[in-house]
Amino acid sequence: MAEDRRFSYEGLWAPKAARPAVRGRGAGGTRIDLAGGRPDPASFPYAELAEATRRVLARDGAAALNYGEPLGFIGLRELLAEKYRRDEGARVDADNFLITNGSAHALQLVVEALVGPGDPIICEAPTWMGAVHTFRVQRAEVLTVDLDTDGINLDQLEDILRRLKRERRQAKFIYTIPTFQNPTGLTMPLPKRRRLLELALEYGTPIVEDDAYGDLRFEGEPQPSLLGLDAAGAVIKLGTVSKILAAGLRLGWIIAPKEVIGHFLTVKLDGGTNPFVSRVAAEYLREHMDAHIGELIEVYRRKRDAMLTTLGEYAPQGCRWTRPEGGFFVWLKLPAGTSLGRLSELCAQNGVGFMPGTACYPDGRGEDAIRLAYSFPTVEEIREGTRLLCEAIRQAGG
Amino acid sequence: MAEDRRFSYEGLWAPKAARPAVRGRGAGGTRIDLAGGRPDPASFPYAELAEATRRVLARDGAAALNYGEPLGFIGLRELLAEKYRRDEGARVDADNFLITNGSAHALQLVVEALVGPGDPIICEAPTWMGAVHTFRVQRAEVLTVDLDTDGINLDQLEDILRRLKRERRQAKFIYTIPTFQNPTGLTMPLPKRRRLLELALEYGTPIVEDDAYGDLRFEGEPQPSLLGLDAAGAVIKLGTVSKILAAGLRLGWIIAPKEVIGHFLTVKLDGGTNPFVSRVAAEYLREHMDAHIGELIEVYRRKRDAMLTTLGEYAPQGCRWTRPEGGFFVWLKLPAGTSLGRLSELCAQNGVGFMPGTACYPDGRGEDAIRLAYSFPTVEEIREGTRLLCEAIRQAGG
Repeated sequence: MAEDRRFSYEGLWAPKAARPAVRGRGAGGTRIDLAGGRPDPASFPYAELAEATRRVLARDGAAALNYGEPLGFIGLRELLAEKYRRDEGARVDADNFLITNGSAHALQLVVEALVGPGDPIICEAPTWMGAVHTFRVQRAEVLTVDLDTDGINLDQLEDILRRLKRERRQAKFIYTIPTFQNPTGLTMPLPKRRRLLELALEYGTPIVEDDAYGDLRFEGEPQPSLLGLDAAGAVIKLGTVSKILAAGLRLGWIIAPKEVIGHFLTVKLDGGTNPFVSRVAAEYLREHMDAHIGELIEVYRRKRDAMLTTLGEYAPQGCRWTRPEGGFFVWLKLPAGTSLGRLSELCAQNGVGFMPGTACYPDGRGEDAIRLAYSFPTVEEIREGTRLLCEAIRQAGG
Repeated sequence: MAEDRRFSYEGLWAPKAARPAVRGRGAGGTRIDLAGGRPDPASFPYAELAEATRRVLARDGAAALNYGEPLGFIGLRELLAEKYRRDEGARVDADNFLITNGSAHALQLVVEALVGPGDPIICEAPTWMGAVHTFRVQRAEVLTVDLDTDGINLDQLEDILRRLKRERRQAKFIYTIPTFQNPTGLTMPLPKRRRLLELALEYGTPIVEDDAYGDLRFEGEPQPSLLGLDAAGAVIKLGTVSKILAAGLRLGWIIAPKEVIGHFLTVKLDGGTNPFVSRVAAEYLREHMDAHIGELIEVYRRKRDAMLTTLGEYAPQGCRWTRPEGGFFVWLKLPAGTSLGRLSELCAQNGVGFMPGTACYPDGRGEDAIRLAYSFPTVEEIREGTRLLCEAIRQAGG
């Protein structure tokens, strides 16, 4: 064998593999991370999870350490079904759930099962950058609908649905984050939710409701979820423990009509979602979920307030930003003429990370906005980071 | 909204989604499961994993419970790199590893990155049914090479490679399980391994070496791995903790040249492999790996011996079976004229599960063989199950 020869992989890659989406600057390496939607590390229930693990392994360890059920651990699915029935009035039981490795994986499965290359899907713009990346890798045709301050623009949406119908095509789904939207923090009010569902039924297009943050409401009236409003089975919902327990557990789920769940299972080739972690999480959540979510709401409300207050004090004229009623994010429109490139450089220098708006659009827009996450840093870091950011915006101004 | 209307998903599915492969009968529900390659539940280190979890959460819990590194936890990758350097002479470090949700997920990523619909790949026949299913879902053109008693038939392989070259096509990879093969338990000897690598280099076709069982050798001389023999970077290797620690942890990995690893990362959309479980596993393995593997070898050797002895005593004339030097499986050729359908019915009645050979071929063959796993049941159950199986074979005979 030729010992020195290098093997060439050239030409072996399938066209499917696309470049990764632009990632936020300094999601890891910065001194103050306002980029990543990472949960607050001080809030993790360390001792309780160790104790839950001990109990799970002592009581039913063999089941936790061997291959599990295809749909995921029944105990977790039952617990979740009860929660969604109680909190959202959803008509679901355990078999409406497929447990996944986080909700990013849940979305990937939905896209892999439904979307072939060139198939149209509809999403909000801006939207979650992980979704942008997933749609790109699957080579979907992504049709965007602008986000108004009260959520997806229904006129634009109907125009697209109507046009597709004329062309005898159909979108595979409408992807929406109606509650504490990522990246804007905005929430869609009830009348809009009802009308969105009507359109979905009228045009035979399912809705994928991504809802990672809905439990974390600081103020205002809870809005019924699309899943809860839906009586026809047109809503596929994605959820996760990442924001209400811990992202490192990598547990999410798809909720869908039973006859549909099997299709997602067909493209799920990972030997079943982690039975060990699923049991540990269920063990913890069974006892602590409601109280823990209550604590988290206090944690994130304080952090949001710190960011909003600091923006109010230091943001240069021309900045506009959202006031989220829950979740992790503030969306900040930069003053006209601000250079996003220059702003990124300045923030890299002073060690403050943010997510450029361009990562949140599938279509090259977003030069005029950034996403700020108040979830990970301490209140002191949020104050300092936001102040430094405002200073950098001033310097990057036109 | 029309409350009684059912939403129709008809026509919304992408052509990619294929029916799942035939699953082994009774992998879960049977009284004595000789079907699934599930590890021995008595061997799991329950208390040690609880203790490892406690230590991880107390010492570096924030990192374990938040999003992790794209390639996977560096501590696990370093530990694995050291193991592969030591045991296989592989020229690898931590950045040659991508941690995945088990090795089924590892194979899925390789296939998603490399294989488009209709692209040719080459695999052994019979082979692991999970691979058969994965290739089917990605709609690859699967070209099979017969397995001789010493592994893949190299003449057939070269014929295929030559024919593809004439047609100006190239297989995306050669998928092989050279050590304690699944489903046959057979091992490829060194000269064949060397020649396989030569062919891979000559035809510019990488080898995917799946090696879930290599550590579990009961007898005979260890064979160098393809990864260890490869100096050119033509081998992509898949590994897992499923058989040496616990399948329920869902941890596997891809080993590949550094310039190649990034391509797999591009189609990995799951928010990173579980940092919590990765740290718990690394914590346990750092201290216990070698001793635990030593114990497992004794466990599975005893179980293999129980199955082989019972087959020797009860198998009807015309049965032939492999004698694995390691791993989980015995491959049993049925006497001519045996009805696999009848055998399945009889075993369903007496509560003994096995894997039909048909699940292990991508091309409809396998009516004449079954896979038996001795990994999960107790020694007593193996004796009883194998005896009942032999009786059923007799009854299902021609």
